[in-house]
Amino acid sequence: MTAFFDGIAPVTYKGPDGDGDLAYRHYDPDRVVLGKRLEDHLRFAVAYWHSFAWQGGDPFGGQTFERPWFGDTMEDARLKADVAFELFDLLGVPFFCFHDADVRPEGASFAETTRNLEEIVDVFARKMETSATRLLWGTANLFSHRRYMAGAATNPDPEVFAYAAATVKTCMDATHRLGGENYVLWGGREGYETLLNTDLKREMDQMGRFLSMVVEYKHKIGFAGTILVEPKPQEPTKHQYDHDVATVYGFLKAYGLEGEVKVNIEQGHAILAGHSFEHEIALATALGVFGSIDMNRNDYQSGWDTDQFPNNVPEVALAYYEILKAGGFTTGGTNFDAKLRRQSLDPADLVAAHVGAMDVCARGLIAAAAMLADGSLAEAVAARYRGWQMPWAERMLASPLDAIADLVATENVSPRPVSGQQERLENLVNRFV
Amino acid sequence: MTAFFDGIAPVTYKGPDGDGDLAYRHYDPDRVVLGKRLEDHLRFAVAYWHSFAWQGGDPFGGQTFERPWFGDTMEDARLKADVAFELFDLLGVPFFCFHDADVRPEGASFAETTRNLEEIVDVFARKMETSATRLLWGTANLFSHRRYMAGAATNPDPEVFAYAAATVKTCMDATHRLGGENYVLWGGREGYETLLNTDLKREMDQMGRFLSMVVEYKHKIGFAGTILVEPKPQEPTKHQYDHDVATVYGFLKAYGLEGEVKVNIEQGHAILAGHSFEHEIALATALGVFGSIDMNRNDYQSGWDTDQFPNNVPEVALAYYEILKAGGFTTGGTNFDAKLRRQSLDPADLVAAHVGAMDVCARGLIAAAAMLADGSLAEAVAARYRGWQMPWAERMLASPLDAIADLVATENVSPRPVSGQQERLENLVNRFV
Amino acid sequence: MTAFFDGIAPVTYKGPDGDGDLAYRHYDPDRVVLGKRLEDHLRFAVAYWHSFAWQGGDPFGGQTFERPWFGDTMEDARLKADVAFELFDLLGVPFFCFHDADVRPEGASFAETTRNLEEIVDVFARKMETSATRLLWGTANLFSHRRYMAGAATNPDPEVFAYAAATVKTCMDATHRLGGENYVLWGGREGYETLLNTDLKREMDQMGRFLSMVVEYKHKIGFAGTILVEPKPQEPTKHQYDHDVATVYGFLKAYGLEGEVKVNIEQGHAILAGHSFEHEIALATALGVFGSIDMNRNDYQSGWDTDQFPNNVPEVALAYYEILKAGGFTTGGTNFDAKLRRQSLDPADLVAAHVGAMDVCARGLIAAAAMLADGSLAEAVAARYRGWQMPWAERMLASPLDAIADLVATENVSPRPVSGQQERLENLVNRFV
Amino acid sequence: MTAFFDGIAPVTYKGPDGDGDLAYRHYDPDRVVLGKRLEDHLRFAVAYWHSFAWQGGDPFGGQTFERPWFGDTMEDARLKADVAFELFDLLGVPFFCFHDADVRPEGASFAETTRNLEEIVDVFARKMETSATRLLWGTANLFSHRRYMAGAATNPDPEVFAYAAATVKTCMDATHRLGGENYVLWGGREGYETLLNTDLKREMDQMGRFLSMVVEYKHKIGFAGTILVEPKPQEPTKHQYDHDVATVYGFLKAYGLEGEVKVNIEQGHAILAGHSFEHEIALATALGVFGSIDMNRNDYQSGWDTDQFPNNVPEVALAYYEILKAGGFTTGGTNFDAKLRRQSLDPADLVAAHVGAMDVCARGLIAAAAMLADGSLAEAVAARYRGWQMPWAERMLASPLDAIADLVATENVSPRPVSGQQERLENLVNRFV
Repeated sequence: MTAFFDGIAPVTYKGPDGDGDLAYRHYDPDRVVLGKRLEDHLRFAVAYWHSFAWQGGDPFGGQTFERPWFGDTMEDARLKADVAFELFDLLGVPFFCFHDADVRPEGASFAETTRNLEEIVDVFARKMETSATRLLWGTANLFSHRRYMAGAATNPDPEVFAYAAATVKTCMDATHRLGGENYVLWGGREGYETLLNTDLKREMDQMGRFLSMVVEYKHKIGFAGTILVEPKPQEPTKHQYDHDVATVYGFLKAYGLEGEVKVNIEQGHAILAGHSFEHEIALATALGVFGSIDMNRNDYQSGWDTDQFPNNVPEVALAYYEILKAGGFTTGGTNFDAKLRRQSLDPADLVAAHVGAMDVCARGLIAAAAMLADGSLAEAVAARYRGWQMPWAERMLASPLDAIADLVATENVSPRPVSGQQERLENLVNRFV
Repeated sequence: MTAFFDGIAPVTYKGPDGDGDLAYRHYDPDRVVLGKRLEDHLRFAVAYWHSFAWQGGDPFGGQTFERPWFGDTMEDARLKADVAFELFDLLGVPFFCFHDADVRPEGASFAETTRNLEEIVDVFARKMETSATRLLWGTANLFSHRRYMAGAATNPDPEVFAYAAATVKTCMDATHRLGGENYVLWGGREGYETLLNTDLKREMDQMGRFLSMVVEYKHKIGFAGTILVEPKPQEPTKHQYDHDVATVYGFLKAYGLEGEVKVNIEQGHAILAGHSFEHEIALATALGVFGSIDMNRNDYQSGWDTDQFPNNVPEVALAYYEILKAGGFTTGGTNFDAKLRRQSLDPADLVAAHVGAMDVCARGLIAAAAMLADGSLAEAVAARYRGWQMPWAERMLASPLDAIADLVATENVSPRPVSGQQERLENLVNRFV
Repeated sequence: MTAFFDGIAPVTYKGPDGDGDLAYRHYDPDRVVLGKRLEDHLRFAVAYWHSFAWQGGDPFGGQTFERPWFGDTMEDARLKADVAFELFDLLGVPFFCFHDADVRPEGASFAETTRNLEEIVDVFARKMETSATRLLWGTANLFSHRRYMAGAATNPDPEVFAYAAATVKTCMDATHRLGGENYVLWGGREGYETLLNTDLKREMDQMGRFLSMVVEYKHKIGFAGTILVEPKPQEPTKHQYDHDVATVYGFLKAYGLEGEVKVNIEQGHAILAGHSFEHEIALATALGVFGSIDMNRNDYQSGWDTDQFPNNVPEVALAYYEILKAGGFTTGGTNFDAKLRRQSLDPADLVAAHVGAMDVCARGLIAAAAMLADGSLAEAVAARYRGWQMPWAERMLASPLDAIADLVATENVSPRPVSGQQERLENLVNRFV
Repeated sequence: MTAFFDGIAPVTYKGPDGDGDLAYRHYDPDRVVLGKRLEDHLRFAVAYWHSFAWQGGDPFGGQTFERPWFGDTMEDARLKADVAFELFDLLGVPFFCFHDADVRPEGASFAETTRNLEEIVDVFARKMETSATRLLWGTANLFSHRRYMAGAATNPDPEVFAYAAATVKTCMDATHRLGGENYVLWGGREGYETLLNTDLKREMDQMGRFLSMVVEYKHKIGFAGTILVEPKPQEPTKHQYDHDVATVYGFLKAYGLEGEVKVNIEQGHAILAGHSFEHEIALATALGVFGSIDMNRNDYQSGWDTDQFPNNVPEVALAYYEILKAGGFTTGGTNFDAKLRRQSLDPADLVAAHVGAMDVCARGLIAAAAMLADGSLAEAVAARYRGWQMPWAERMLASPLDAIADLVATENVSPRPVSGQQERLENLVNRFV
């Protein structure tokens, strides 16, 4: 054991009136809801990058955190892994997620970088023999290094494409070896800063080919997990090609990948794209491409990705309601892509942030399950569309425009507006949250 | 002649130093640029709704304009048509655009409403025998009447779908009869106010079927124009299904319509969706679905659709640059979907607004043409991607991930970042605008 | 009794598990919290305009509601008043608020308009003899009529200033006569559409003079209520001079009115200005100008004033926490400046929207009171600033820069950062909401 | 001479058709406009931080630039100074601006840091003996170091306040010694991340005291320059106390500093606050607190401070029009608080970015001067308010509300709306830009 979390006991469920701020008040992993344990519903994952690699900097200030593993050596990386698994154990989370750059130092060459990654993957594999924490997904960081400043798959330089492709190969191998349930691609640099120097069509084609390579390689190595793309509209890039769920869907259709790839939806990215989180989830389930979620929250008054831990139960409940309606997670889960505020310096802050977030999610999911079990909401929706079940409506839908025009004219069709009952449905939701 | 524009002479080209504020200083229709007359490049259209039907109201205030044709009778409609064609003639615009609701009073029944429309179409047809102004596109207003408050094609009530379909049929007939070069669909109510009462999948399928009907009917009647969908992210609806160009593209792919339907892109809608105008145009040309533009401008500090007349030449130039790069308009054109500020009460304001906007567009297009003719910008882009023409790059692009990883490791690939030169390219553009 | 609310019984408190959607589950007016009844804490008011005068229109569509009192006659106005007081009684709300334009038809002259207002004020006065509902505030609508299109107090035309001043006089008289506890000014047109036609300095001076007249008249007639200005950044105007609380404070200081005028803060206006609701309240209490609130909610993804009924308890709790910390309302209250969605056609929707909102506010205030009673949050804040109570700190604060520099250099001051504990405090709040 | 700009000749004015992209096409420093040389109108300054200290990082990626002076030693700092003055000379700019942290390495103690600063100030002083470039303003970086993570003047820890005050003292000394024409304070951390841990009133009082200290020290040392505060609404902080011009004005009034302190307005900060650049300038001149500008541009589709070089002439022209209307700069100037895009790696990019920006500003100012000289715009504004010069209007403005109401009733005042002519005025502007 490292000394990092000294004095902090494993976090357990103590009920709504439990003491202390490092206890679960709502997240009881074994509580059964809709026939499934909460842990199996929520499938929580800790994000390695924010919790262990981020140093507290922002565009106007440098590092604020002081962690004994900040440094560029393999020894630092091993210490970081030790502390990470200590946090996983303290929290009792079933999953974690990582980028290659979070876990290993960059080497002097691609080969050395790969060896560094493989060595840490060995460390992880040994730890996972005794830990209950598994890998939700792995991914490659194709955005931080200056080589990717003009894109990875979409770079004007084919050498960068090659380097990125090679890197993804090593990360898929690592994810496969660790039994990861998904592999994620977030294209933070796959976009443009200015149209003036950009060949949009070419870049999208490069990205389509890149994603096809990933799918082909998945099948080649027998990786059973899901390939996930994570939409984001912009930041760091002025425009990112994976703008939102609708954009990714169109992209997948264009390159014939809609049966192979799903989406990992982040609350903060949804907000930046002008959508609610539940919208993006509902759209993905409607389009058949829902995969997993990055749970966090963006400040509604800030125009960048604040990646805060979630804290609003009613909002979280609406997100889980869409997920449960669609059958819940399969390979996906709830990854906390959330970082401490840069003033939250203490190890206890890191634990408390996850504890609070897990409780918020548990409350949200329990409320969503109750809404689903109650059925009033679903019934109200069904009633609203009931007219479409009438035979004339089905016939009409299959008719050509001019036949419908005849029908309307001869029958003097004159629809009668009915209330949408939005406030009453909102009130109904408030009974559960 | 009505008396509405009394004292205002036909607007003619007087050159940059011409007198008066009702003269073209830059729009010389016969000036030849890149082998084509300016008029044939720009294909200006006046929008009937803003210029003749809008009364100056906003969410906090009522009518400000006083026009002799404001009223609900056929006589009002005929007077409005007279004044409209007087404006077309004064400006010398080659096109106009209209919704059914702009040009005819609503009748007591669908049949009466249809007859009203047909009568006005007759009026238009007669006027067009002597006027030089043609129809760029027609469309149906499926959003103002309360029957459409919960959607037209996406309404939970099949009667509304039927009414909307019948209405579109009459508008397509009208457009066809008047020789319209396009038919447009803007789905202002095709979206939702709250997910709580919405079946997203069903509504999208209804919309897909509706659009298919439109395409089928086009072929049935031999309409040679283009079917255009106009994206908008929201307003009036909280979320609109035709969010932006990328969303519409995915929708067309989902329903197999990408070869039949193109997009009509509005500057203000692009801004509301978080995009620049030139982005939406460039994306549409890259995806092969570019059709036409609604030229206006949204206030960058306002979160709603302000629909102002364009006045920023450098911005307009970038939009036309993307259009010219892709070969220019075919059936599309530059429709001024722009309205006077509600304090601009005078007939001369209406003329001046168009004159200023046409001059801004002319300057923009002339600058864009010069950028294209110069070629430096295109050459800079080509040079940036030149590496992809090397044989190794083409081989690599066709290789699987693991082969690329071998290549990178064995060749010790280590890409060298090069400048993206954004500021230099921006300076280059500023030589032309 | 009119027939409008036929079949709807007075709304009473039935507890969290009560039946039906027209019952209070949380708002028990007589429940005592922090030594005061909930009704006296919350001081709910119904807004006449949204509930009785708004017809359901939006920028892209017309009226959706069908109310028997929609019309321009005094008879309509009297029927509207009947229904309004029926709603106040059904809900058991202690207050209502109105603009002149909500309650009376516009006359053919100022004198006739004034007589219409006086007649309705008589009607109100008679109703208030038997109703338990009092007047929270009155106000003048200086934005809907076309005469105000370029501003009221800030109009370039002194006749408009005079007309507005005269109108405010009649509305202050009405408010005074009805025992209103406040008088509100919202300057929806007091701003500009374009700087190009605006003399900013002159317009602000006109507005300062106008507000001074209001204050002088208040004292002249012995009106004991509070004068409130309601900030909003824009909409309908591109820029509004009462942008936000900080702007209004500076304005009051500039014209020497900071001791006479306070602010009425609206959630939706706060959001449009880029602030949270609790920020605006906290700032107003810090600056000593907090007066009252307009409770509603704006859609976070929409850039205009959506004026929805509140439904997020954690957010509402933070607003009331700031109010309770500062001692609670004095003359102010919780006015629902919220409108039904335009599809919510039924009388029951109107009742249900208020019931749900009142419950949300009651839950929020109860949670806020518990946070205050608990004291942990306040103690954490106090502890954070404790260093400032040390004598050296007080001395330092009174020293000149160079003395402080000497101190820092000679004592080798080197501050040690401590955790801001944001996540732990957010978790703490979540125990109460 | 260092080798950094090898091959780049001093930039000179070559006229609109000059060759090469490192020549002024519009900025002819000696051209006389409105009786003053362009150089004396525009008063350009290079910002040390972006051009020499920024390394190309963003929230998702690290350093992209490779500069020989990147490092933490005094030797690096001296090399940086050499290159900086080489750029000033190449460009022929009359001014530069700097933070302490831009020019010297942080020492192990306050005393050492101060010595480092003094040593570099000596270097600057020697260089300025032969260079034509003077100091527009100096400032202290009170936001990057982790000690300032919770604020400088507004920190909960008085030691941080003391450290910040001491630091400002050294920076004011440095600015004074170098003959700086202004001293700037930008409070990037003077705000809060969450209200939950913040005492708003106390923090504002601390900030007021801090600013008073600065003013007192200015007078003590006989610094003749202007003290400037730079508004920004947020970023890095969630809420910054110097939100915008209106907020700063209220703050200055609250602490009695409105006669001593003016504002430095940045285009990008105006945009983030929901204002246009020209609005903030016009408001500051109306309130008598206009000082200087940070010229840059924010991407309209990004919600953070992109700090790009300006490139839109019509927008820049409107900003200079407001400045010229108010009499032009006195101690202020045009500081390029703009940074290269992180892909713009080459020394020539740095030169070209400034050249392009200076040309854009020169075109903007020349256009603004022509608008002013022409006088049509000013005459249109004057005409709009002419009614206020009538004797009755002046009497009315001095009357009480009830007297005005009598007047309106007895005279049957009924104002006649007149056109605001916005589009015609926009067209008028377009003749000059």
